[in-house]
Amino acid sequence: MQGFPPPEERIIRFTDDDYFAGDKLKWTVCHFRELMPTAGVRAGTEGARDLPYALDPSIDEVTFQPTGGSEAMTWEEAFDVNHTDGLLVLHRGRVVYERYAGCLDETTLHGVMSVTKSITGLIGETLVAEGTLDEQAQVGELVPELADSAFGDATLRQVLEMTTALDYSEDYADPEADVWTYARAGSPLPPPPDYEGPRSYFAFLETVEKAGEHGEAFGYRTINSDALGWIISRATGQRRRRLAGRAGLVATRCRAGSLLHSGLNRHPFAGGGFNATLRDLGRLGQLILDEGRLDGEQVLPADAIARIRQGGDRAAFAKAGFSGLDGWSYRGMWWVSHDNHGAFAARGVHGQTIWIDPTAEMVIVRLASHPVAANAANDPTSLPAYRALADYLMDQEQ
Amino acid sequence: MQGFPPPEERIIRFTDDDYFAGDKLKWTVCHFRELMPTAGVRAGTEGARDLPYALDPSIDEVTFQPTGGSEAMTWEEAFDVNHTDGLLVLHRGRVVYERYAGCLDETTLHGVMSVTKSITGLIGETLVAEGTLDEQAQVGELVPELADSAFGDATLRQVLEMTTALDYSEDYADPEADVWTYARAGSPLPPPPDYEGPRSYFAFLETVEKAGEHGEAFGYRTINSDALGWIISRATGQRRRRLAGRAGLVATRCRAGSLLHSGLNRHPFAGGGFNATLRDLGRLGQLILDEGRLDGEQVLPADAIARIRQGGDRAAFAKAGFSGLDGWSYRGMWWVSHDNHGAFAARGVHGQTIWIDPTAEMVIVRLASHPVAANAANDPTSLPAYRALADYLMDQEQ
Repeated sequence: MQGFPPPEERIIRFTDDDYFAGDKLKWTVCHFRELMPTAGVRAGTEGARDLPYALDPSIDEVTFQPTGGSEAMTWEEAFDVNHTDGLLVLHRGRVVYERYAGCLDETTLHGVMSVTKSITGLIGETLVAEGTLDEQAQVGELVPELADSAFGDATLRQVLEMTTALDYSEDYADPEADVWTYARAGSPLPPPPDYEGPRSYFAFLETVEKAGEHGEAFGYRTINSDALGWIISRATGQRRRRLAGRAGLVATRCRAGSLLHSGLNRHPFAGGGFNATLRDLGRLGQLILDEGRLDGEQVLPADAIARIRQGGDRAAFAKAGFSGLDGWSYRGMWWVSHDNHGAFAARGVHGQTIWIDPTAEMVIVRLASHPVAANAANDPTSLPAYRALADYLMDQEQ
Repeated sequence: MQGFPPPEERIIRFTDDDYFAGDKLKWTVCHFRELMPTAGVRAGTEGARDLPYALDPSIDEVTFQPTGGSEAMTWEEAFDVNHTDGLLVLHRGRVVYERYAGCLDETTLHGVMSVTKSITGLIGETLVAEGTLDEQAQVGELVPELADSAFGDATLRQVLEMTTALDYSEDYADPEADVWTYARAGSPLPPPPDYEGPRSYFAFLETVEKAGEHGEAFGYRTINSDALGWIISRATGQRRRRLAGRAGLVATRCRAGSLLHSGLNRHPFAGGGFNATLRDLGRLGQLILDEGRLDGEQVLPADAIARIRQGGDRAAFAKAGFSGLDGWSYRGMWWVSHDNHGAFAARGVHGQTIWIDPTAEMVIVRLASHPVAANAANDPTSLPAYRALADYLMDQEQ
């Protein structure tokens, strides 16, 4: 065994510019904790709640028509095409499909990227449903430090639907985009010698200026999720790490997870920092499909989930011009398809997904390391596959 | 709740020079993971094995005579004097004392500092006892990359007893000491622009030069533990993270732990990086006291523990001049007192201790944040207290 230590050219460091690109991406998605500071997400001292199994090997043969493509494709072929690291399907609460590849196995935590937003949003909707937070309250009332920022006169509901009007660019392809200033603010690495900007995500949020009017257009901006994280912390006196329990992660007795650092000790990155196992995300998805009930107990308020499922402003959503998501909306930081199955999803770059189809009683969790960040690259070989599987599973019931 | 985010002067960052000093130390000992990269130590999917309890509140009244002091002190008083964060005592396998303070509670991982060396050493002695490693083999044979370094012609036994002759200073008070060069090599932070030195602990180890003859004197140098870690990895094909299971951490069904990064992905810091809960360290201590048996199963070879307990070369140890440890020795990276109880210990800076007294059938685990790094500062109010408690517990049996 001469494999350790690896040769210099095979070493991956957080300080490398390309740690989350190319071949390194495929390692990094499973190893965030080994690259940067994290906070643990506790799952209590009990072991994980076992998932019931009823595996169906025929699923690999399910065929679907990729969007815009002429050749039909099988479920199995799509696994590789989408650079999948892990894929779990629950039908009526039982695991019918489970497969791993790349860096992932059943106990490995994988970065879920912006699926984190949906967990933060679920907590936000829970607090609204319980009456702890008023969705019509202005952010400046909830967090006085944000009163003079663009968030100040936005409502909590606008934050939850990302219809805030912010002078902030999240175009990752533009090196001058605000998202990079934001990344520098939250970095745990030392700032450049002449750096005088904000030293945490929270300090950055206070500097964001308004551009236009709130409530008119959907704009997918991560800083809304971190503003929501701050609102939640202030309203409850708890940090998000504990609040993960509220999102059912403890209630479903997950193994555990981890959350990336926000640039401030003890406060993880609500917009994209969560890491979890495939099965734990399946447990969470099932809890949501079951309208918050677990073993007869109402762990999350059903109304919080109903609020998400009803969807947001479709006209406002359309203005953002998301390719392939015509007719969709965004609500409580979940993507709502408004299809005739009422399917809705948590989505993160490079192919991370929790797909919940209430009509088919199906939950799909996919963790992936697609080389293209935007999900527009994998949606054509994913969304029709999910629907084909839903139809297959519903046929099986008959 | 205006406590979050904290004001700038209360923020602790890994990039601060003083993150492990002064008041910050008391927070940092419980939050290493939130400051720097770590690797998880898995404990399997089962819950933790419950420890049986038989708490004895009278222990707080046990009195002892501090070394060199005139005033007697109670066990309870010593708790505060030693800046204790957590203190657990097992007697005949049952918890008779448990107390937390500061940043610690029963589920929090605390940095154990050089207690990590003893866990690495226990794995090394296990591999020797099982015949996987020959203690008389030269390090250069075991890890060819180290053949031209000072370690090359040292035996594994000399590494395990830290009687290697290394041109390496570990005087933390000297800013020019080699230990700081070593720290820079393993740092996950970006190197200075003009830095051309080693970029991992392992690359550093290859550069260490010899000073004197191996086997003549004990020299407490962390790099021996990291060399041992490398030897273990090479011999077994496993990284230390999995090997923690071999040290009984999995077998005793601990919650979990974490290990700091070594500057190389996937390879944690064997010389001081482990973090664990107080109870998990108690489980480990009890497993060692029980000569490697757990529930009738021989989890660790009894011979590995016997090798540690027999102690090392006391004359070689004496040459290092450790104040207050006259007559002690160091073996398998454990501190052996050679007292008439046969007590031996794992020890880490700022007061971390696993103290095992086979005669009293007692295990003490203490986690602490004493402002003075060297244990010479707390030994006078610790070592006599341990003995007094052993005597008290033995009296109770009669």
